[in-house]
Amino acid sequence: MEKIRIGIVGYGNLGRGIETALTNSSDLELFAIFTRRDPATIATENRVESFQDIFDYKNDLDVLILAGGSQKDIPVQGPELAAHFNTVDCFDNHASIADYYIKMNEIALATKHVSTIAIGWDPGLFSLQRMMAEAILPEGNSYTFWGKGLSQGHSDAVRRVPGVKMGAQYTIPDQAMIEQIKSGQDVDYTSVKAHQRLVYVVAESDADQAEIKEKIVKMPDYFAPYQTEVKFITGTEFKAKHQGMPHGGTVIRQGSTSPDNKAVYEFNLKLESNPEYTAAISVAFARATYKLFRAEQYGAKTIFDIPLGLLSNRDSEDLLHNII
Amino acid sequence: MEKIRIGIVGYGNLGRGIETALTNSSDLELFAIFTRRDPATIATENRVESFQDIFDYKNDLDVLILAGGSQKDIPVQGPELAAHFNTVDCFDNHASIADYYIKMNEIALATKHVSTIAIGWDPGLFSLQRMMAEAILPEGNSYTFWGKGLSQGHSDAVRRVPGVKMGAQYTIPDQAMIEQIKSGQDVDYTSVKAHQRLVYVVAESDADQAEIKEKIVKMPDYFAPYQTEVKFITGTEFKAKHQGMPHGGTVIRQGSTSPDNKAVYEFNLKLESNPEYTAAISVAFARATYKLFRAEQYGAKTIFDIPLGLLSNRDSEDLLHNII
Repeated sequence: MEKIRIGIVGYGNLGRGIETALTNSSDLELFAIFTRRDPATIATENRVESFQDIFDYKNDLDVLILAGGSQKDIPVQGPELAAHFNTVDCFDNHASIADYYIKMNEIALATKHVSTIAIGWDPGLFSLQRMMAEAILPEGNSYTFWGKGLSQGHSDAVRRVPGVKMGAQYTIPDQAMIEQIKSGQDVDYTSVKAHQRLVYVVAESDADQAEIKEKIVKMPDYFAPYQTEVKFITGTEFKAKHQGMPHGGTVIRQGSTSPDNKAVYEFNLKLESNPEYTAAISVAFARATYKLFRAEQYGAKTIFDIPLGLLSNRDSEDLLHNII
Repeated sequence: MEKIRIGIVGYGNLGRGIETALTNSSDLELFAIFTRRDPATIATENRVESFQDIFDYKNDLDVLILAGGSQKDIPVQGPELAAHFNTVDCFDNHASIADYYIKMNEIALATKHVSTIAIGWDPGLFSLQRMMAEAILPEGNSYTFWGKGLSQGHSDAVRRVPGVKMGAQYTIPDQAMIEQIKSGQDVDYTSVKAHQRLVYVVAESDADQAEIKEKIVKMPDYFAPYQTEVKFITGTEFKAKHQGMPHGGTVIRQGSTSPDNKAVYEFNLKLESNPEYTAAISVAFARATYKLFRAEQYGAKTIFDIPLGLLSNRDSEDLLHNII
């Protein structure tokens, strides 16, 4: 059987994760990585091509996985590439997904491609669980908790504070609140009440730590409304313990199937590498995307639109015998 | 907007659960319950008709939900009804699902209906989670734990032991093993090692309790290989504490996204009423079944084949704005 030929667009943490994830899938193969940098500078044993030449490889690629950022890269690259390729992206700007879907759907339908958008764990797996939990149990409440995990955006904000040499910010969910929900109790959930922020800082040697702490905990939006703890550590400790990108979270719905009986639906992820797991999800969706393309089911797709058995390398009969 | 008209076939615990679940769904309405008993003997305020007259209502029903047993009812009723109606069933005999699918698919395709089969939480939601967890993380191991929950089949077996007046059997998962898996440790999982059985018995006053206990724990297949505990209680305590039908369980996959990084995918259900929750799932799938029928996507479907956004009472735009 011919393998599904994948292109990776972008070679940051996510792109490298996709490269790794592809080695675990016998039915997919990496054709090339496309980069805006000089291909010669990319340290990998796989083929690397310049992004500007990507349209030369239209006949060599079955699906492109877009590994750029949601802020600047995907909104431009997505529509541009969807006109010529099947695509999968991890666009995660929740507020813009509906508009992005409309744009991508129009292009993919017109050019007979499949563009799978907003794939990852949130949006993505968590969206699916939120939707299913509610559809099954209309009487109830859903909650999402993030962490314990490293927040890239908040870590960046910490590093912009004067006097900060290195910084990492972890989002920590309120485990007691999760246990209350699981045991059927009512909770007063807001995103702010349900999460704490824990910041590790390596300060410049001449910096005023009290001032750094004050600037962080009072930073509007990012930290001010949250319970925030700031810990100062050495550069050695930072390098040993805070270079990873762990993340995860919980989707939970507590509801009732009748006035007498409660039910709790709970989904958890615990990831040592957030970008590697997001990459692994995007690779499974690349498989599904190509199967939809072969079935002429063109257009933009979210996790809600795809028969999820297509994610599996097992065929329908195998699934019925061994997984169901 | 016209409501989707539902018929319930069978009025045991599952049928009553479906009747209750339908009251939570504003876009679905119960047309009638169909029973093999005398309709006049059924205690409900809803319409009840005789099962033998069901074909008279072909134009009044959009989807039938089959609430009979998987042993004797569904294998006969499914094919018979799929030729004339869209159907949803909770057929749960794992070993026969592949054969049942082939039969139902043939009939549904030939008569242009949609037959959604093997819906519930296992098979059903658990099947979906097992499949997705593996597709995303090919390097890893999946585990299913059932309980704590009442097992109907094992309770029946207990009640057949001479001297037993009332009996209830709970399946209890090994929580320590679940925690080991979550923390990334290797475990020696077999279904027998991963579960214990706890039996509550009300004995006849002249019965030999030691003999009853011996007969239960040594019962082949049902109990012999498992660690089983038998507790004798009074009829009063039994009626107060063991009349419910709680259940639930865990699907968990532990794997690695790269040689350096682990990931854990975990799904839990905790249900005070097993039949009510199974019913609630079947009702959401009745909605999806009718949408597939309107889209002329005929044939038999499992949870792997259905774009799951169809389960929701929200439309696609609403899902993109508020759930994803």
